[in-house]
Amino acid sequence: MTAEYIKSVVKSVPDYPKPGIMFRDVTSVLEDHKAFSSCISLLVDKYQGMGFDKIAGTEARGFLFGAPLAIEMGIGFVPVRKPNKLPREVVSESYELEYGMDTLEIHKDAIQQGDKVLLIDDLLATGGTIEASAKLIRALGGEVEHAGFVIGLPSLKGHERLSEIGVESFTICDFDGE
Amino acid sequence: MTAEYIKSVVKSVPDYPKPGIMFRDVTSVLEDHKAFSSCISLLVDKYQGMGFDKIAGTEARGFLFGAPLAIEMGIGFVPVRKPNKLPREVVSESYELEYGMDTLEIHKDAIQQGDKVLLIDDLLATGGTIEASAKLIRALGGEVEHAGFVIGLPSLKGHERLSEIGVESFTICDFDGE
Repeated sequence: MTAEYIKSVVKSVPDYPKPGIMFRDVTSVLEDHKAFSSCISLLVDKYQGMGFDKIAGTEARGFLFGAPLAIEMGIGFVPVRKPNKLPREVVSESYELEYGMDTLEIHKDAIQQGDKVLLIDDLLATGGTIEASAKLIRALGGEVEHAGFVIGLPSLKGHERLSEIGVESFTICDFDGE
Repeated sequence: MTAEYIKSVVKSVPDYPKPGIMFRDVTSVLEDHKAFSSCISLLVDKYQGMGFDKIAGTEARGFLFGAPLAIEMGIGFVPVRKPNKLPREVVSESYELEYGMDTLEIHKDAIQQGDKVLLIDDLLATGGTIEASAKLIRALGGEVEHAGFVIGLPSLKGHERLSEIGVESFTICDFDGE
């Protein structure tokens, strides 16, 4: 029931960012307190008690769900950011976009050896961003076995891609071509 | 006591992003659950019961404190974003940086006439970003009279600048040249 309500609140914007793409707009979920708090509650229900030490979220929309979840779960939050945004020593990981490359960075001292880290983002598409984030955390000695999302786009096979690198994904609601 | 603890957790990074600048790094607050949740509690204590309809936070670090505060206060969150990030119809506002200009955008339908909006960001420096955000919300008919921050840099006179446009600012802790 709750997941259906959240899905009903997501606005679908045709032809954005380019013709033929149906963009699933998560900002409409944030604006609706009932939907936004339900997202956080569902993620708490899913992940509480599994022994996570930290939550990591990717700039910028991953901050919107990862930060409140960290507060609710009583653990720290680690931002994964675009280049040249973090002031202390970082590690970097580049990954492929549909056209070209992008890079993500994380503070070296934000993850300790053996930390169990939960990755959170707004939307699971191809999984490229989360794969790069998982590599960064693992490079610092952290363990990443779970990633949670508000929206999934199953046709883009992100779940399968993450599964191949040992990350189990969970989505609150899926849009599959409707 | 709590504010002093939060201040003690903020890491100061010399010569970032350029020589002579002492950067106050709020990511160290996020990583420390006690400090992060204390920030949200102090902001709730300050702003609960004042009749706010929405919280607005500016990309990207404003998301980190504004989104959890919206969850705790039981109201919606409106993201103020950099250009070409929001999929629906937007209004834009350009503002001066130390070198050059930047632009912020907000969804037109995210603010209704008469909405009382609380602005949240991580750090109050000159106040330029928050002034631009307040202009966007006011252009859509929203009321903005308060802005809350984790860190203040009083020497940069942001408090005075915001006061001149009718926005009262609150900072959890200040760094004044130490």
